[in-house]
Amino acid sequence: MLNIPALDKLVHELARLPGIGPKTAQRLAYYVMRSPAEYSQRLGEALERVRTEVHTCPVCFNYTDLDICKYCTDPHRSNEVLCVLEEPSDIMRIEASGAFRGRYHVLHGAISPLDGIGPSELKIQELLTRVNKSLEQDGGIKEIIMALDADLEGDTTILYLAKQLAHTGVKISRIAHGVPIGSDIDYIDDRTMNRALENRISL
Amino acid sequence: MLNIPALDKLVHELARLPGIGPKTAQRLAYYVMRSPAEYSQRLGEALERVRTEVHTCPVCFNYTDLDICKYCTDPHRSNEVLCVLEEPSDIMRIEASGAFRGRYHVLHGAISPLDGIGPSELKIQELLTRVNKSLEQDGGIKEIIMALDADLEGDTTILYLAKQLAHTGVKISRIAHGVPIGSDIDYIDDRTMNRALENRISL
Repeated sequence: MLNIPALDKLVHELARLPGIGPKTAQRLAYYVMRSPAEYSQRLGEALERVRTEVHTCPVCFNYTDLDICKYCTDPHRSNEVLCVLEEPSDIMRIEASGAFRGRYHVLHGAISPLDGIGPSELKIQELLTRVNKSLEQDGGIKEIIMALDADLEGDTTILYLAKQLAHTGVKISRIAHGVPIGSDIDYIDDRTMNRALENRISL
Repeated sequence: MLNIPALDKLVHELARLPGIGPKTAQRLAYYVMRSPAEYSQRLGEALERVRTEVHTCPVCFNYTDLDICKYCTDPHRSNEVLCVLEEPSDIMRIEASGAFRGRYHVLHGAISPLDGIGPSELKIQELLTRVNKSLEQDGGIKEIIMALDADLEGDTTILYLAKQLAHTGVKISRIAHGVPIGSDIDYIDDRTMNRALENRISL
């Protein structure tokens, strides 16, 4: 508590950000105070712009400032492959690899009963509706690639989705787990090595 | 780059905060997106309030939302002792100790030639003027306590101030350096132990 209500309020709001504790929030607030007034004005305007301009795409649930996001409207991308992700930021990682030219679907999280996140908290119903609608049309979805986090929540969500999508007959795959490129075998953890051996590829 | 101008702008502005890199800034921006609109509105309002309400006290240069800060106007504090600090946040540490009931003077930094910070970048001239003016009056400053950081910049600043204040005849002291209370002697670094032995107190 700095006993200046306006400064205390800024510290309080900054401390709500993930990974920012009260002490860091205080340091950030003092930085804002020390900076020229234009900085806090620009930061305020940026917050305002994001609030008014950016929303989720109604098709894939990525963040966008367009009616429908650029990945959903791009005519050069294939409608036959759909990549399912946990977070909008994951799209940048897939795009940067250059290995995918299909469409996306963002779930906005993964199933995690301990955190109270069930299928209805995620964009799963929207995914099922989207797949069914696509199958009714000619040239619909042929493959769904699950690119979820390699943890318990990601695995649970993939199993749940695979069950829900089984009746559609669409091919379902998941990205490979194994030894990362450029890494030293000596430093790979047991579970990753287990997967890398299990999923070995014949030459 | 997320290729959404409004979101990129927010990431850019957040990444200017100390200790926040581009990756963390992106995580924070996504958190703001996920939160209800009220959150980013409250944060924006807090920034606005700090910009308009909080300024430095014209006497001691602490941050305040009053014309003159509460430490400078408090009639129960002694005018005879002045504590010189680097940052406004340091006042909270001195206050929390409960061992000081005098006035404050915040330099807003310390002399650091490598960073291009000389005496004129700090509130040093203001300190000298304040001390001289106080001495002209009856019951003026009797002691100046230097509570600067225990590093090279703090030491340099203290030496400079001591020289500048020598002619006033005011007693100048610095806070003690030594072994922190509650600490294990085994873990104390060499320089701290050196100071603790040098400044030993006879019982």
